[in-house]
Amino acid sequence: MASDLIAALRTIAGTDNVLTGAAAEPYCTDRRGRYSGNALAVVLPSSAQQVSEVVKLCAKNRIAIVPQGGNTSLCGASVPLADDTRQVVVNLSRMNRIRNVDATNYTMTVEAGCKLAALYEATEQVDRIFPLGLTAIAPHCEIGGNLSTNAGGIGVLRYGNARDLVLGLEVVLPDGRVWNGLRALRKDNTGYDLKHLFIGAEGTLGIITAAVLKLFPRPQSVATACVAVRDPAAAVALLSHLRASCGDSISAFEIVSRSCLDLVFRHIPDTQEPFADKQHDWIVITQLSDVLPAPLDAALTDALQAFDDGVLEYTVTTDQAQAEAWWKLRKNISDAQKSEGISIKHDVAVPVSRVAKFIAQTDVVLHKAYPGLRIVAFGHMGDGNIHYNISKLDAAQNPPFIERHEHDVNRLVYEVVAKLEGSISAEHGLGQLKREEITHYKSAIEIELMRSIKRTLDPQGLMNPGKVV
Amino acid sequence: MASDLIAALRTIAGTDNVLTGAAAEPYCTDRRGRYSGNALAVVLPSSAQQVSEVVKLCAKNRIAIVPQGGNTSLCGASVPLADDTRQVVVNLSRMNRIRNVDATNYTMTVEAGCKLAALYEATEQVDRIFPLGLTAIAPHCEIGGNLSTNAGGIGVLRYGNARDLVLGLEVVLPDGRVWNGLRALRKDNTGYDLKHLFIGAEGTLGIITAAVLKLFPRPQSVATACVAVRDPAAAVALLSHLRASCGDSISAFEIVSRSCLDLVFRHIPDTQEPFADKQHDWIVITQLSDVLPAPLDAALTDALQAFDDGVLEYTVTTDQAQAEAWWKLRKNISDAQKSEGISIKHDVAVPVSRVAKFIAQTDVVLHKAYPGLRIVAFGHMGDGNIHYNISKLDAAQNPPFIERHEHDVNRLVYEVVAKLEGSISAEHGLGQLKREEITHYKSAIEIELMRSIKRTLDPQGLMNPGKVV
Repeated sequence: MASDLIAALRTIAGTDNVLTGAAAEPYCTDRRGRYSGNALAVVLPSSAQQVSEVVKLCAKNRIAIVPQGGNTSLCGASVPLADDTRQVVVNLSRMNRIRNVDATNYTMTVEAGCKLAALYEATEQVDRIFPLGLTAIAPHCEIGGNLSTNAGGIGVLRYGNARDLVLGLEVVLPDGRVWNGLRALRKDNTGYDLKHLFIGAEGTLGIITAAVLKLFPRPQSVATACVAVRDPAAAVALLSHLRASCGDSISAFEIVSRSCLDLVFRHIPDTQEPFADKQHDWIVITQLSDVLPAPLDAALTDALQAFDDGVLEYTVTTDQAQAEAWWKLRKNISDAQKSEGISIKHDVAVPVSRVAKFIAQTDVVLHKAYPGLRIVAFGHMGDGNIHYNISKLDAAQNPPFIERHEHDVNRLVYEVVAKLEGSISAEHGLGQLKREEITHYKSAIEIELMRSIKRTLDPQGLMNPGKVV
Repeated sequence: MASDLIAALRTIAGTDNVLTGAAAEPYCTDRRGRYSGNALAVVLPSSAQQVSEVVKLCAKNRIAIVPQGGNTSLCGASVPLADDTRQVVVNLSRMNRIRNVDATNYTMTVEAGCKLAALYEATEQVDRIFPLGLTAIAPHCEIGGNLSTNAGGIGVLRYGNARDLVLGLEVVLPDGRVWNGLRALRKDNTGYDLKHLFIGAEGTLGIITAAVLKLFPRPQSVATACVAVRDPAAAVALLSHLRASCGDSISAFEIVSRSCLDLVFRHIPDTQEPFADKQHDWIVITQLSDVLPAPLDAALTDALQAFDDGVLEYTVTTDQAQAEAWWKLRKNISDAQKSEGISIKHDVAVPVSRVAKFIAQTDVVLHKAYPGLRIVAFGHMGDGNIHYNISKLDAAQNPPFIERHEHDVNRLVYEVVAKLEGSISAEHGLGQLKREEITHYKSAIEIELMRSIKRTLDPQGLMNPGKVV
């Protein structure tokens, strides 16, 4: 039976593009090594037509399908389940053509398997940008996965989430039919907006095989500031003020706590305190960028000067090396933390106006329940999105602590999130990791609506089962 | 039976808020007087709870529900059908509270019955804007309707369609349950994005009763240019160039043909040729705006000077009166055309890069089939959205011409649209007007997906039947 299926897959995709046994293993474990599963085969189709045939074959044989791109999911969305053997991984990496770049329409049509970094390059050639800001992972992740998880990253404040960067999609449906929704239109009010169903669905409603993406003009002017703030509340107020003063030119607003800085200085070479004389508890890195040749450093300085409630110190620069030195502090927090072992990680969002409340209230709750914890809080304050990681100071204590208390720590954090009407997964999705957890934080009506849509589009439940819903 | 229903509706919404007979009539005909229908009653609930009870009552009795806001639909979406008597209009106008304005989060939570103009006022008070640009209709239309039709207008180029301005929704589902999705989050990846199903669904999947809307900082600098271009192709290239030079600060780019200008000069007092010495065939009105105190007139002049392929003449101004004189030409085209009787109107979109092709190809096709037609082409070129109206020069000939040839004219126009991969309804929706027509221009798969979603959410088919799908 399995051998018949594999033979049929080989007929569709070519012998070399159906992997089994040891060759399939790398595709069955996620990039961080947290999730692992089994698959009858990994198939790498090269066209929507082949994907369609593979899906039809699987549907006929009631074999589950795990769509996969760069396999960089942080929630186990892109690997097969551990406890099911009737699964096939459909890896899209061979569908990596840029079908069309229309610089005048500010769009490009790309296949799901294009690496994000390849899209950066292709747009640079036509003096445009594709502003999905996931620079660290861009050489590995693929646009199909980015869209399936509605990826965020740095730049959401200015350009929106992945969802906001899409005009059209091509999707292979759970019964194998191909929906060609590759429209390149800024306006189209002709019925239900189906593309938004598939974006962020983590492959549970169909397989995105291609997309029309929005491009943007390339910024010419950049100014960056490092600002020491009294506390997160001052940062929240500062952001509101900066938006009112500088508008759309704000392209990043990231907050970093002292605990993050300490980790970075300890583990990452060539990093320095941003302010020589004083170790501040909280810093903000913010960036203005503009297509116009604007004096953004003056604008940013003016805006900072006009705001005196809780700004302790700041430096504004247009010097790229200086800006990169600051960004190095922000971008290496995760790596620095990894050097001290594992931690309990959260990717939460609240309304921007409530970020300071979230940080303050969660601190109180956690320190009361678990005295002596280290809280590493940082992230995309401009989007209300905080990465909030918790560990013991002594790295050796973490594995047993996490083993015993992860569930309770999550519950404490998520309850504050819920009280502030936030989200327990801001940008990483649900995958396997939070599929169960989300049922406590979404209304029964919403869960039921999601399930009824899943049943309608995928009545056999074969499309990435065990993820999301 | 009808009297029982009416009595029950009065118990829910109050006696004065259930209209029948002559009192109901104004709600049963659309604002332009093109669509008319019958309803057992018009009910005006004042809360989501009342809407829920009304919907439950109707669902139990298998009475169709027509959700209605300001009744300004251009496609007959907001009035009952002519050939069905078992219908109730649920008008949301009494649900007109602004529940919350959070200037720091740049959001407000508003009820569906808020007039768009009231939202402009409320945001001005907190030094923000809500950028859905439908100024002419704003005193009449309501935000629930704006969202249900995914309204466009001037400003889409910069801020997106209505859909892009929403963070959360409250919706009464076809079975009367209330889905509270009023999240005020910039990032939330916890499953299917349900709000995008209801936005643009024209009330066929549920009744939007409230929404969380994005606000934006108020622009401080504005510069406007009137540009005479050789032809639409030059305008397309100019737009691409301006975006690359001036970026996000471009907030409008509208094209106006000579036929439009002639109509406006003939019928609208106090209007002048924008260029004194020469009557150009095509003009563009474009606007830059910025929150930063930027020298936008210099930027715009520089960008225009750097572009020499087909720009015949231009004037740049920061003078508001001058800018308004130009905008008067654009904004009065529809009214001027009305003075010469009825016409065949189209609201189409193509990729921005193909707008010139659309205008050129449609002109050829139509003039060949119907020599001597007047073609009035204008609109939101920045979004690829052209309003394209067709009439006989002699107004008296129009009623018989339209009676006989509207269908064939539409077919000729839509076939060019389809060839250019465009949309037959860019911003007005489908309603009753294009419900049948769209089946020729969408794939069978897409129509079937839409219908299966309709069946899933509204199995009895009671929510605004005869519209969209």
